Amino acid sequence: MPPTLLTYLLLALVAGSGAASARRHRSPANLTASGNPVYLWPLPKNFTSGTQTLAVDPDLALDAQGLGGGAAAVAEAFGRYRSLIFSPWAHAARPASRAYDVSTLTVVVASADETLELGVDESYTIYIGAAGGVNSIVGGATIEANTIYGAIRGLETFSQLCVFNYDTKNVEVRYAPWYIQDEPRFAFRGLLLDTSRHYYPVDVIKQVIDSMSFAKLNVLHWHIIDEQSFPLEIPSYPNLWKGSYSKLERYTVEDAQYIVSYAKKRGIHVMAEIDVPGHGESWGNGYPKLWPSPSCTEPLDVSSNFTFEVISGILSDMRKIFPFGMFHLGGDEVYTGCWNVTPHVKQWLDERNMTTKDAYKYFVLRAQEIAIHLNWTPVNWEETFNSFGENLNPLTVVHNWLGPGVCPKVVAKGLRCIMSNQGAWYLDHLDVPWEEVYAEEPLAGISDAAQQKLVLGGEVCMWGETADTSDALQTIWPRAAAAAERMWSPLEAISAQDLETTVLSRLHYFRCLLNHRGIAAAPVTNFYARRPPIGPGSCFIQ
Amino acid sequence: MPPTLLTYLLLALVAGSGAASARRHRSPANLTASGNPVYLWPLPKNFTSGTQTLAVDPDLALDAQGLGGGAAAVAEAFGRYRSLIFSPWAHAARPASRAYDVSTLTVVVASADETLELGVDESYTIYIGAAGGVNSIVGGATIEANTIYGAIRGLETFSQLCVFNYDTKNVEVRYAPWYIQDEPRFAFRGLLLDTSRHYYPVDVIKQVIDSMSFAKLNVLHWHIIDEQSFPLEIPSYPNLWKGSYSKLERYTVEDAQYIVSYAKKRGIHVMAEIDVPGHGESWGNGYPKLWPSPSCTEPLDVSSNFTFEVISGILSDMRKIFPFGMFHLGGDEVYTGCWNVTPHVKQWLDERNMTTKDAYKYFVLRAQEIAIHLNWTPVNWEETFNSFGENLNPLTVVHNWLGPGVCPKVVAKGLRCIMSNQGAWYLDHLDVPWEEVYAEEPLAGISDAAQQKLVLGGEVCMWGETADTSDALQTIWPRAAAAAERMWSPLEAISAQDLETTVLSRLHYFRCLLNHRGIAAAPVTNFYARRPPIGPGSCFIQ
Repeated sequence: MPPTLLTYLLLALVAGSGAASARRHRSPANLTASGNPVYLWPLPKNFTSGTQTLAVDPDLALDAQGLGGGAAAVAEAFGRYRSLIFSPWAHAARPASRAYDVSTLTVVVASADETLELGVDESYTIYIGAAGGVNSIVGGATIEANTIYGAIRGLETFSQLCVFNYDTKNVEVRYAPWYIQDEPRFAFRGLLLDTSRHYYPVDVIKQVIDSMSFAKLNVLHWHIIDEQSFPLEIPSYPNLWKGSYSKLERYTVEDAQYIVSYAKKRGIHVMAEIDVPGHGESWGNGYPKLWPSPSCTEPLDVSSNFTFEVISGILSDMRKIFPFGMFHLGGDEVYTGCWNVTPHVKQWLDERNMTTKDAYKYFVLRAQEIAIHLNWTPVNWEETFNSFGENLNPLTVVHNWLGPGVCPKVVAKGLRCIMSNQGAWYLDHLDVPWEEVYAEEPLAGISDAAQQKLVLGGEVCMWGETADTSDALQTIWPRAAAAAERMWSPLEAISAQDLETTVLSRLHYFRCLLNHRGIAAAPVTNFYARRPPIGPGSCFIQ
Repeated sequence: MPPTLLTYLLLALVAGSGAASARRHRSPANLTASGNPVYLWPLPKNFTSGTQTLAVDPDLALDAQGLGGGAAAVAEAFGRYRSLIFSPWAHAARPASRAYDVSTLTVVVASADETLELGVDESYTIYIGAAGGVNSIVGGATIEANTIYGAIRGLETFSQLCVFNYDTKNVEVRYAPWYIQDEPRFAFRGLLLDTSRHYYPVDVIKQVIDSMSFAKLNVLHWHIIDEQSFPLEIPSYPNLWKGSYSKLERYTVEDAQYIVSYAKKRGIHVMAEIDVPGHGESWGNGYPKLWPSPSCTEPLDVSSNFTFEVISGILSDMRKIFPFGMFHLGGDEVYTGCWNVTPHVKQWLDERNMTTKDAYKYFVLRAQEIAIHLNWTPVNWEETFNSFGENLNPLTVVHNWLGPGVCPKVVAKGLRCIMSNQGAWYLDHLDVPWEEVYAEEPLAGISDAAQQKLVLGGEVCMWGETADTSDALQTIWPRAAAAAERMWSPLEAISAQDLETTVLSRLHYFRCLLNHRGIAAAPVTNFYARRPPIGPGSCFIQ
């Protein structure tokens, strides 16, 4: 019998009961009922905890329920998280006759629809209680979600509740019974990865995706191509690949498809970008005609139909790889000076009585049309809005980066916005401490509820000029986690906290959890990001 | 029919033939027959190459032969390397009717003895040729070795010969046919990892072990415990674990056994260390009696039998974990001043008419006896030799670190030596460039052949004061690779080379290979080690 309804009723009873016993009550901010920090990151929306300690069976079994519970993605995610929970501790010999409190994890998924699109339901509910106790009828552990993606988020939270006790050599859930009801504040919680300034091998992109899922980030903004290199295979224009740094620093179509599939299994969208017309120099290595002239290699040649044929070919090819509904067209840092001094471009401008600023607008809007024709929502960096916001297609999502206060202007015009204020959320700004990342609020300056809804969320950006495989993960983490909690957890909960006393200990813990999972997150309180520890010490206090 | 003998004869013919065709000849230094660099690291002892390009079947099958070929370790290693060869590129769709040149890898292992001990035979021979060609009778790929550990080294070399061709979307072996005959110059090729100054999660130690196997390093010197923390469980003296940084920065006995087992599957010894008496402060957190006094917390109390009872208990427990025949007893940096001002120790010294220097010797020799009694070869840091070398047990292996010129003195006295001159091989010395690591010669100053044999090899040391999960791998790599080639490859081959033109390109390549395998190796030519790249660029030139 699917327990969904019964369980929900019981959970509601547990959660809402004004007569909750001393062992179980709604906790303030991020403390357990026992007054201990809740070592969960990001902080769930609602939770109650208790004082029991439950032992988790190393042979933890999955009981998948509901229309969507049988999905392969659920079983796969359960397997991944069982490894994360028990490895590397499962080497401890299992006592033969040990009785465990939690031997089955029930995962109920209401919907069989596996579509991953912006705004997909990521909510979930967790109940963990001891069998034989007050709540014996729902003893064990249960995750309930409307979609497989909610279940995946719940599995992450469940895994963070499971901690190895080195004295008993059991994985335990402390402060049970737990009731957690959770969902994100923003639908778009992104991380930009720049594979043009330096190439990242697929295995490293997988590490980035894995780590994103640990912090419940859900959009990998893949800044694939820029002026420095063109690593992605484009079957329609195969010579573009000549713009790769080398023959070994490339992504095949199949690599990209694999990355999309790998991300989807973790509930992560992949938003691809081509940054036109300003960041396209590498395109011309394969097709020099895309350059206005050998001495004017970007912006791309606005005067040539071939330029837009190539864009159309790239986007058509990419549409087969990237199912996500949003596509980033760049549009930042367009320095049009050399258009004016390239005779055939200058002539083209003059014939149309266009300034270079007009031509910039023309380029962006024509590229938007190509993307929209392919059923993509276009995303553009904020310069496009700043320069000709009134002309942007109403579907446009504006991506802030230059500074604070842009999203309020964007949403006031009825357009949607993503916040990446470089002063706080550009991860290559090594002098920004975690507190400033954490304090950055995507809704700052927007009080109107309807306008607030137009802010899809935000994105931390790992630009690649000085980041590669050797340092990306420690530049991303732990600061990206600060933004992740800002975007996931309720504003009231995270605003009310004293950073030093109630957030920092959880962030230290999350950083050490990342380390335990093999992710090279840097110390939290470094003077500069990604700096190594300055002396011996515990992970939890450096 | 086991092809061993037949294959050997044919290989000898191929290798030694004075009538070798232009397509196949002994290459100078590290160039292929075609004049291209041999992208192998470390450089094999002998090899010949050709001009063929062979396509490798993504469904590459193992044909295990010989008495040892059927070992699970061989099949496991083959599986690992097949993943390394084809992942992440195997996502490319396989053409339906493609004929591959190499569809089977034959691995012949002569001996079924899986004992892993210092000096185990790591030699191997590889032959890769096209079926249907001149050497059709040995077409395909064959690795022959006397032990599974030689086979594992051969698999690493084979995997480095396999490169993805992004144009054909095949994994290919270029410059075939290949004949490689290889074995290490030194039996002991170590890397020290310090888990006391910072704790490394087991998953991170696994990454270190994996990466060591890629460079054919074969001894993980596990500096488990030091004055800052005591992370390892010692069942005989369970309170020692109270010296861990926290309850989550610990290794269980089972963790340590798992690490030993994981390393063994990669042909890597684990040499454990307790650094007595000078680096033992953390021991006293659980047993304060080990401290001479609360204000004299190290060296450990030389006057107390309890000290040696604890050492005996630790070593007895460790003997069940660490099968390797060598055990490191430390003995460096013993500052005995506070022994003299601790009344009961001073009294003990006076009663025996001993100086503190005498007591240092007494401590080290008594600890050696305990280790020897447990059938361990004792290893000690060089201060023990410098202070009382004539008293050291003749079994002692002296571990150099303070500077150059120590091993010549050690071997002149008939003792064995490991070279770790800190000026070149301490990886936390960030200002040592790769060229200086590469140039450091363990046999420098030793011309007598018998004395040369007493140098077991060398070890690069990743001390942990400013290294943790966030930066260890990029501090270790790529410089550890420079030492690895120094210790593996023939002296003539690596001495004769022009570093800039013939070594650097291979080292760049090896660093990028590590990156492809998910290891965060830093740029090769950084001004300081582990520094990120200073600007955009290809992995292969930074």
